[in-house]
Amino acid sequence: MNNHSEWIVQAIETVGKTALRDTEYWRATYTPQDKDAVSVLNNYMKEAGMETYFDAVGNLFGRIPGRCSDTVLCGSHRDTVRQGGKYDGMLGILTAIRSVSSLNKELGQPEKSIEVVALCEEESSRFPTSYLGSRHICGLLKEEELLDLDDSGMSLGEAIRDAGYYYGQLSNGRTDITNFVELHIEQGGLMEYEKKQIGIVSAIVGLFTGEIVFKGQQNHAGTTPMRLRKDPVPVAAEFIYRLNLWAKKYQDNLVCTVGKIDRKPGNSNVICDDVSITFDIRSAEQKYLDEANTILNDLKKQLDEHVDIAIDITCNESPVSLDSDGIHILEKLVKEYDYSWKPMVSGAGHDSQIMAQKYKTNMIFVPSVNGISHSTKEFTKAEDIQAGCEIMKAFIKELAW
Amino acid sequence: MNNHSEWIVQAIETVGKTALRDTEYWRATYTPQDKDAVSVLNNYMKEAGMETYFDAVGNLFGRIPGRCSDTVLCGSHRDTVRQGGKYDGMLGILTAIRSVSSLNKELGQPEKSIEVVALCEEESSRFPTSYLGSRHICGLLKEEELLDLDDSGMSLGEAIRDAGYYYGQLSNGRTDITNFVELHIEQGGLMEYEKKQIGIVSAIVGLFTGEIVFKGQQNHAGTTPMRLRKDPVPVAAEFIYRLNLWAKKYQDNLVCTVGKIDRKPGNSNVICDDVSITFDIRSAEQKYLDEANTILNDLKKQLDEHVDIAIDITCNESPVSLDSDGIHILEKLVKEYDYSWKPMVSGAGHDSQIMAQKYKTNMIFVPSVNGISHSTKEFTKAEDIQAGCEIMKAFIKELAW
Repeated sequence: MNNHSEWIVQAIETVGKTALRDTEYWRATYTPQDKDAVSVLNNYMKEAGMETYFDAVGNLFGRIPGRCSDTVLCGSHRDTVRQGGKYDGMLGILTAIRSVSSLNKELGQPEKSIEVVALCEEESSRFPTSYLGSRHICGLLKEEELLDLDDSGMSLGEAIRDAGYYYGQLSNGRTDITNFVELHIEQGGLMEYEKKQIGIVSAIVGLFTGEIVFKGQQNHAGTTPMRLRKDPVPVAAEFIYRLNLWAKKYQDNLVCTVGKIDRKPGNSNVICDDVSITFDIRSAEQKYLDEANTILNDLKKQLDEHVDIAIDITCNESPVSLDSDGIHILEKLVKEYDYSWKPMVSGAGHDSQIMAQKYKTNMIFVPSVNGISHSTKEFTKAEDIQAGCEIMKAFIKELAW
Repeated sequence: MNNHSEWIVQAIETVGKTALRDTEYWRATYTPQDKDAVSVLNNYMKEAGMETYFDAVGNLFGRIPGRCSDTVLCGSHRDTVRQGGKYDGMLGILTAIRSVSSLNKELGQPEKSIEVVALCEEESSRFPTSYLGSRHICGLLKEEELLDLDDSGMSLGEAIRDAGYYYGQLSNGRTDITNFVELHIEQGGLMEYEKKQIGIVSAIVGLFTGEIVFKGQQNHAGTTPMRLRKDPVPVAAEFIYRLNLWAKKYQDNLVCTVGKIDRKPGNSNVICDDVSITFDIRSAEQKYLDEANTILNDLKKQLDEHVDIAIDITCNESPVSLDSDGIHILEKLVKEYDYSWKPMVSGAGHDSQIMAQKYKTNMIFVPSVNGISHSTKEFTKAEDIQAGCEIMKAFIKELAW
């Protein structure tokens, strides 16, 4: 019963097969691929002795009732991005099923009730919204979001009904949950780089993103003297250069990415009319995100002499700290089990950041080979899955038994 | 007979109508639009008392035989870019016809023969090649270029034959020509900005162009620490920033443009895999183009620590000086006529840069309103056309009568 990874790896492959849409790996919410995965997961939960049920938006729960009304919730999301992989989300669900199943067999009825959850729509895999499942559990999903449309024009409300879930009344927020625990692949290369098996997440970064448009004046590249130009390209370049210099000062305390640069018209012999860039700045500490806002405005003031600069902020989410009691327990456990480990900040968003707003929440990371995620090449080694499951199981035992 | 602009403006409108292809203004070489323009120009030349003929690639010549075998050639190109205007090229042909016609009526047979030429394919309006007509006259067109294909897959050779021109033998280069004179719109805003009617061109810039690829490594924007990134965007930004700092040092001696920036994959939350940029550097002095080459390689060496940088040079043409005797005559004439004028460097390419390799060559610029060219909005004021024609006429008189 202690070789968890064998069962989990087999289950990963079995559930993975349900995500194939034509030639693409893509499990979008409320699609046939999602229905097939739910069916497989439902069976796994029942085999583990759980009572299963769905809530109004189609989150799948497997429950082992405890002696008191408090509930420890564990799991992750079941959707994938387009051309995604088998591990992101699903490994957290399967590890939770395995841990709870194993504890139940070993120890019988828990003190607190335990639920494993397979959450829907974390990735914006079909609808513009994300964290749909966790937001519903927390009572943060708004009725008007049910009007959001997918690419085919079907509303979220229709899709939920169409998939057979009831949505006449959204949850006001569950009050029985005391803890949420999520295991997830790292989605970065840091653990592999530092040869660590377990990451204990202290915080999920805040996100400060947006677009900057540099509006110049299109002109002939050969006949417009340097002094008469309103060329947005060197201005955007200096902006990016200086922003990056600022970001590098703080090294591991933040990340700063310009991932998209567009320009019009984009002919080699024409001075651009405008350039637009995106910025994506993340930090576990609010003070760095505040400073990012300041630095963007300072750069705008310094560089807008010949070119208009407009900054549009599209997301400004604060960092979320995870439960410190849970972190202490996890630290104690990894030392007991003698796993190599490191405290981590999650640079990616997770359902845990929603859950943490209502419930004591903790996350366990396991490494992704080559740091790859959101790709069909996602892979986590069996030995790391085993380590993750041992810690998950031990942690749930501490919380619920 | 001295109101030249009235006839020229009317002729500009008449020839202009021949360039309409569906709803687009576009006179590509050897098309029905080109044939219609040739027909109108042929009539104008005959009305002006010229003998007309075509050479093997379809350059249209109007000739007034002089007393000796030397020939003064004047004119410009008759093709336009797609969505081009009525003035670029055509104004030079019509001004030449008008000047020669006027001189012929006033002064009778010239000492040297005079030819007006309506050159084909300067703009790469249909075939990848440019300066086709002038290169043929100079004997620089190579047989193998006749195999070049247009977008429909027709070869240049076929298109020339199809348009009714003979191409069994290309010119080895005419030896009777002593001078070439071309009037052209400025294609920039400098003359208008400085309120000048006539530009006397001293040189046509050399062109140093190419592409630079910055190859990094795609990764997650949230989970990859700054120190583990191979992000090509800040490197490309610093490259552009420093290149522009260098270029601005020399102000009016060169221009430097990054007109195209592409990136893959271009998602706001993904570190780019690669960035490619174009560079377009022009100067009338070779030393600046040589220095440009050095600075690109220096920047590559300074910045390729985490990202591979590859520089691909696509064009490295030397600057061309125009005929200094001609420049002195032109300067004397603008002073006599009391036109506001300035010495100029042409930042754009012209047939004159080809002709100057074989014959004494000079160029006269007239202003474009708002510096616009390669656009249906091209416009030059009648008073500036009149001034340009007066100088052209006086200059041809000095050269040929």
